[in-house]
Amino acid sequence: MKTEALGRWLENILHTKIPLTKEMDIRVTGYDGATLKLRAPLARNVNDKGSAFGGSLFSLAVLAGWGLLSLKLKEENLAGDVVIHETSVTYRHPVSEDLEACCELAGDNEYSKFITALRTRGKGRITLDVNVMQGSRIAMHFRGSFVAFRLNR
Amino acid sequence: MKTEALGRWLENILHTKIPLTKEMDIRVTGYDGATLKLRAPLARNVNDKGSAFGGSLFSLAVLAGWGLLSLKLKEENLAGDVVIHETSVTYRHPVSEDLEACCELAGDNEYSKFITALRTRGKGRITLDVNVMQGSRIAMHFRGSFVAFRLNR
Repeated sequence: MKTEALGRWLENILHTKIPLTKEMDIRVTGYDGATLKLRAPLARNVNDKGSAFGGSLFSLAVLAGWGLLSLKLKEENLAGDVVIHETSVTYRHPVSEDLEACCELAGDNEYSKFITALRTRGKGRITLDVNVMQGSRIAMHFRGSFVAFRLNR
Repeated sequence: MKTEALGRWLENILHTKIPLTKEMDIRVTGYDGATLKLRAPLARNVNDKGSAFGGSLFSLAVLAGWGLLSLKLKEENLAGDVVIHETSVTYRHPVSEDLEACCELAGDNEYSKFITALRTRGKGRITLDVNVMQGSRIAMHFRGSFVAFRLNR
């Protein structure tokens, strides 16, 4: 499957399996095999101050990490469940435009270890960083520890 | 205003000012002046595995902290904006029932310092813990550092 088709596959999974993502109107705006970008309109995700709701920013970030790992598992032809275990988040600046979260695989080494552990022991763990920008500044930084479990099917 | 009326006031603010809370169907289920409970049905907040979506759990938790501080500011007759600055979250167990987040003011001393700083310097900071239970176990623990800014009106 080409990366563009994989992006559409992920968007379909989000909207059919996690109904809140449809209410948030989350779209896959970029995937190249190593970086995933998700976008959501401000109007659907606004708070009492007219900027992006912190819960929406978090949801977009955790889904960027979860989505990137789900796409990689599909590319590796591995059936697995991905779950979030721990996160730390810093909100640095308000976001007053449409929300875009970007998650990039940090380095080949950590990703290789994760996939090897998943193949050989049935469980892998990886830490991912996700940023939401406001113009050229990082508005929110998310760091999450994700765990994947291999499914036998 | 009685605590019950304050709970309805908060629910109205959530649904009118943060539209996603209406889609999540968040309700104020308890407020006694020191503890706030927010609830949301699983069906609206489900993930691909049939349990609660991590983004919904986070949103409910951050709103329990934000809502508790907003209620306290109203009781103190202080006009202010409350924002989230930093959070750390641990997901311990999946939640397979309706989501309920509970936030309690930790101790009088920290709260007093927060209110005094807000009154005298126009800015106060406080750390709050929020738990989401699954039966008798903590399913998700949220710790957040909130900042309040006094508004002159």
